[in-house]
Amino acid sequence: MRILVINPNTTASMTRKIGEAARKAAAPGTDVLAVNPEDGPPSIEGYFDEVFSIPGLIGCIQKNPDYDAYVIACFDDTGLHAARTATSAPVIGIGEAAFHMASLLAGRFSVVTTLAVSIPAIEANLVHYGLSVRCGRVRASEIAVLELERPGSDACSTISAEIGRAIKEDHADAIVLGCAGMTDLAERLSREHGVPVLDGVSCAVKLAEGLVQLGLRTSKAGGYAAPRPKAYSGIFAANSPK
Amino acid sequence: MRILVINPNTTASMTRKIGEAARKAAAPGTDVLAVNPEDGPPSIEGYFDEVFSIPGLIGCIQKNPDYDAYVIACFDDTGLHAARTATSAPVIGIGEAAFHMASLLAGRFSVVTTLAVSIPAIEANLVHYGLSVRCGRVRASEIAVLELERPGSDACSTISAEIGRAIKEDHADAIVLGCAGMTDLAERLSREHGVPVLDGVSCAVKLAEGLVQLGLRTSKAGGYAAPRPKAYSGIFAANSPK
Amino acid sequence: MRILVINPNTTASMTRKIGEAARKAAAPGTDVLAVNPEDGPPSIEGYFDEVFSIPGLIGCIQKNPDYDAYVIACFDDTGLHAARTATSAPVIGIGEAAFHMASLLAGRFSVVTTLAVSIPAIEANLVHYGLSVRCGRVRASEIAVLELERPGSDACSTISAEIGRAIKEDHADAIVLGCAGMTDLAERLSREHGVPVLDGVSCAVKLAEGLVQLGLRTSKAGGYAAPRPKAYSGIFAANSPK
Amino acid sequence: MRILVINPNTTASMTRKIGEAARKAAAPGTDVLAVNPEDGPPSIEGYFDEVFSIPGLIGCIQKNPDYDAYVIACFDDTGLHAARTATSAPVIGIGEAAFHMASLLAGRFSVVTTLAVSIPAIEANLVHYGLSVRCGRVRASEIAVLELERPGSDACSTISAEIGRAIKEDHADAIVLGCAGMTDLAERLSREHGVPVLDGVSCAVKLAEGLVQLGLRTSKAGGYAAPRPKAYSGIFAANSPK
Amino acid sequence: MRILVINPNTTASMTRKIGEAARKAAAPGTDVLAVNPEDGPPSIEGYFDEVFSIPGLIGCIQKNPDYDAYVIACFDDTGLHAARTATSAPVIGIGEAAFHMASLLAGRFSVVTTLAVSIPAIEANLVHYGLSVRCGRVRASEIAVLELERPGSDACSTISAEIGRAIKEDHADAIVLGCAGMTDLAERLSREHGVPVLDGVSCAVKLAEGLVQLGLRTSKAGGYAAPRPKAYSGIFAANSPK
Amino acid sequence: MRILVINPNTTASMTRKIGEAARKAAAPGTDVLAVNPEDGPPSIEGYFDEVFSIPGLIGCIQKNPDYDAYVIACFDDTGLHAARTATSAPVIGIGEAAFHMASLLAGRFSVVTTLAVSIPAIEANLVHYGLSVRCGRVRASEIAVLELERPGSDACSTISAEIGRAIKEDHADAIVLGCAGMTDLAERLSREHGVPVLDGVSCAVKLAEGLVQLGLRTSKAGGYAAPRPKAYSGIFAANSPK
Repeated sequence: MRILVINPNTTASMTRKIGEAARKAAAPGTDVLAVNPEDGPPSIEGYFDEVFSIPGLIGCIQKNPDYDAYVIACFDDTGLHAARTATSAPVIGIGEAAFHMASLLAGRFSVVTTLAVSIPAIEANLVHYGLSVRCGRVRASEIAVLELERPGSDACSTISAEIGRAIKEDHADAIVLGCAGMTDLAERLSREHGVPVLDGVSCAVKLAEGLVQLGLRTSKAGGYAAPRPKAYSGIFAANSPK
Repeated sequence: MRILVINPNTTASMTRKIGEAARKAAAPGTDVLAVNPEDGPPSIEGYFDEVFSIPGLIGCIQKNPDYDAYVIACFDDTGLHAARTATSAPVIGIGEAAFHMASLLAGRFSVVTTLAVSIPAIEANLVHYGLSVRCGRVRASEIAVLELERPGSDACSTISAEIGRAIKEDHADAIVLGCAGMTDLAERLSREHGVPVLDGVSCAVKLAEGLVQLGLRTSKAGGYAAPRPKAYSGIFAANSPK
Repeated sequence: MRILVINPNTTASMTRKIGEAARKAAAPGTDVLAVNPEDGPPSIEGYFDEVFSIPGLIGCIQKNPDYDAYVIACFDDTGLHAARTATSAPVIGIGEAAFHMASLLAGRFSVVTTLAVSIPAIEANLVHYGLSVRCGRVRASEIAVLELERPGSDACSTISAEIGRAIKEDHADAIVLGCAGMTDLAERLSREHGVPVLDGVSCAVKLAEGLVQLGLRTSKAGGYAAPRPKAYSGIFAANSPK
Repeated sequence: MRILVINPNTTASMTRKIGEAARKAAAPGTDVLAVNPEDGPPSIEGYFDEVFSIPGLIGCIQKNPDYDAYVIACFDDTGLHAARTATSAPVIGIGEAAFHMASLLAGRFSVVTTLAVSIPAIEANLVHYGLSVRCGRVRASEIAVLELERPGSDACSTISAEIGRAIKEDHADAIVLGCAGMTDLAERLSREHGVPVLDGVSCAVKLAEGLVQLGLRTSKAGGYAAPRPKAYSGIFAANSPK
Repeated sequence: MRILVINPNTTASMTRKIGEAARKAAAPGTDVLAVNPEDGPPSIEGYFDEVFSIPGLIGCIQKNPDYDAYVIACFDDTGLHAARTATSAPVIGIGEAAFHMASLLAGRFSVVTTLAVSIPAIEANLVHYGLSVRCGRVRASEIAVLELERPGSDACSTISAEIGRAIKEDHADAIVLGCAGMTDLAERLSREHGVPVLDGVSCAVKLAEGLVQLGLRTSKAGGYAAPRPKAYSGIFAANSPK
Repeated sequence: MRILVINPNTTASMTRKIGEAARKAAAPGTDVLAVNPEDGPPSIEGYFDEVFSIPGLIGCIQKNPDYDAYVIACFDDTGLHAARTATSAPVIGIGEAAFHMASLLAGRFSVVTTLAVSIPAIEANLVHYGLSVRCGRVRASEIAVLELERPGSDACSTISAEIGRAIKEDHADAIVLGCAGMTDLAERLSREHGVPVLDGVSCAVKLAEGLVQLGLRTSKAGGYAAPRPKAYSGIFAANSPK
């Protein structure tokens, strides 16, 4: 089985870290390739950055059409619905993956993400998925995405403190880490706090593997139907659906 | 007052029709300019097309930064949240405009849009806005967007039949037309059915005028904060937030 | 265009202040008349007062049937649904007006009203409109309505402190002022806190103007149908629907 | 124990029928007095009529302050919240009474009321109470309130047919009759359809008796606090809260 | 009228206390018998204990088939839905009874229960009944069920402190006591805090009496239909539905 | 990895079919054991049967404490919450498994189950999980559980017809089969209707494998905490939590 993990920002070091996490989660026999677009923002922090990451993300799928499943490795599930129209293979966002998995382990989870500016998009996703009723609160640690890449950063202890508050104030019995760049912290934080701490990258890999092994594919009977063929103009001509 | 109305698809005839509707709705003293991006899809029908229309839509705002308000003239409010981060002037989507206005006139409205593939995105918007509780049902007439531009099309009678069903089956007491290309049909259909039939383009112009006259601007204290400055790569370099 | 702004309480000084705010918000060419009933309570603070203000409010519409639109200038939108059955011109409550406008500018608004006793009615309205999902919290400043009319009152600083808490605790990125008597404070409080602060009176005027200019009228196909003709008894005989 | 049952319309024959139903439901030792206001509409069909029935309804409580409980015998629970501020004795609306009782007997109930114009108010009540999730649908039989008072009317068979549709289409396993004037039909319709058919008048009497026997009274710590003393003007001077 | 009150745990002293509370609430002419199963847990604290109390609870109904109504005297309404399939007489849970009664007296109630481990089940019940919208918060006093039975325990003051917080922090204007073992504390706590404090046992008795007096019975047309006859194996053979 | 799949009814042929489906879905290296309790009902059709299947289900876990994960192979997720308190290994219900997986493949799924009497419990689960917003409708085929075990039954074509209605009337773009006994029909029905048709048994196995491979376990910090040690009486003495 081959899974394409797409980091929709252009920061290669983060793509590498995500790829490692995905490979660590993958079952024997699963090949993971982690890629990122060449065009777009170096990190995704809010609605504006999202817009300029999605065409590249879709381009990654169009250029790699033969994978068995695709994982979108940005916690706000950037471009998820569009990606599902671009292939009939399963497409899993790391945000939704962690939300669904957490719902199987705990009564209520809270999310600890990077910047407050990302909270509204995450909250809207939770409402859309239905899982907002399972979420205590989406919390920001106010650590910027790329700070997570900086060696020597004390990001982990800041995140840990926020997790402590989530357990105490939100009565959360599980924690979802709200950024693909936090993927290497889950295990340590789980041990520290004694509750499940979920990383979306590994959750998404397992969900993708499961769907592929069952032969399940994205439905084409509703909003995820293949786009109607039409000729796009200008810089997006090559992306035109056929 | 100057309002920029952005048709996020590349079909100039539709931009013209939208511009006319917007100007017809505008108060004396309001200047309306209708534009469309050069890059992207000729019509927006579903999630995939959306992705490739939004960078051009944002580009239109970036190239025209001095307008008093912006209207996004695509019924699924394509790129609305991102557009709000790109300016502090009010940005109004024609979908939300019609939903809010209909909520002031009727107990329950139904939406009649083009293709069924657009229904999930519209439904998700309604949930996000809170107004799904006011909506009877989102209905598709199965008329493609560009068919509305074809002279001699019998689109109007098909839409009218669907409106009849919405009134009878959904107990809707107002109708929202679910495509910018239907803007010229509202008056006639309202007379025909004896209920308010709302066109989002004109509703958005009035809401934009109202907000501007009150000196109200998009909040920068939450998810609509200006994007953090960073250097985008490749074809989006020029869009980098500063 | 002529808009009748009805203050449903009997306090003439408040009617004057509301009239000024409405006229200030009105476009050139809009005539605003502000009135109040002769019968009823001098201020509306909770469910009981509401009951005795609504017949007079409806009477104001019945005695002034030729206006292009009506604004109900009490923040709990007293008698809104009944008023809509009494005319086919648009009727806008200042509460709903502010909620809808705030939803176009911010992700989440909080309300700062007068007394806690009014909170349940406002919360119920938000649920009914659908916009409770957009509201962080309805907060009371515990300032009585008529205290706002007293020269030298320090009401504004109390309200400002509550706004500060709303921004910090509710993560609200816009504020709605929850009383017609606060209409003159919005601008100053907005500057002070750096977020949109909305006054319902001016919002309602702009929404009314917009609907009138578009030729849109209240639907008569649902719950806002004209009342069935019948003879009322006693003191309400003159209000009988014909 | 003394219960005052208030029919908020002015039709004495209906008050008599309601009084009989209430007395039939009452336990030995419960005295029931059924009254109606002298001022107001002869029947309540929609929002407009409501407005002119509530002052008289409140007046009935003010003139009869020593009852142990009050029942509002109009299915849209006209003036319920205001009535609760006017006394600390329990006040029960016949709509809510039937909804709560039905929730104890069945998974999902549907409502069969008189005219469609009353549906929005009933639906709003259900949302406010929380019980809309237990309601399949609010259905109109299109029988006017006073038609129920006409000897020889075939209202019962029309209502029965609508009940049949509710069971089949809504999968309702209980039926709530949506008008105080239907109070004498419940038993017969229940036998006919083999499901519980609830009449709000009798349900309200039992709930009122229960609360009184337990010594429970309306909370004065929230929105049902006694109105602040103030002098009302004109025809409502006598209703001023002291 | 004969009501069977079933304490689903095996602690006889608690059954006695519940029986006394039920008899105190009952009207003259109502016979109350309080029983408990012989098999199962001595107290119900969380999901696990529930499982082993319900067969005994159902057995109590099967062995006492001729009662007019049944009350389940455990606050998480253990086995309520199953019990309703086992008889056509009304079955009332003390949790739902208190929630419904509180909804008739106050705008928002909070629950004060024993251990935090019971909160999720209570919250789920509230959502299922629809009444979660009426509930401020479900709070744990962290007093174990059987501690309530210990003479000299200071449980009451701990519970009182939590009630104080509910009124202040949740803006609750009524309190529901969340354990059958608290039934003797309601009156005293109500006087202390000046808000209605509801005990589910007495509420359930009154609701049961009311339904019986109206001749209303559990619907058999939906999920509460009698179980299909089948032969159970092993220790449950005697419980097989016929 | 070892997964215990528990069919909570006592029908061994169904246990075998479920075991086969589970083994077919399992990855190489996953050992599946399918068991059923000796005590309890031969099929689970509604609330009553559930009660008498859960003690045996929990007993299966208590007797087999060393598995890496547990699957509850009854579509109404019988005893799920209690089972999660009985072990810290992941416990997955086949209903929730199918709902979560369907949510990753389609915008809206419908459920086709056996008897209408099971619908309320399934609907309540969907609400509890949050996924009711993703579900079009829960439909009954009116095929009894054990009819699915009868050779020569035409159950499959009846189910297929109901699926057709779900696609047409509910606009579902995926189908969830609502009974463990339908596990062998999914592939064929998916091919027939051209949409994903999900079987809960296989979905649950993949979710369980994924969670185990990630080292994730049920949270013990909330409602799934281990039961407090106490001595149960009578037939359940051996189940007492220690």
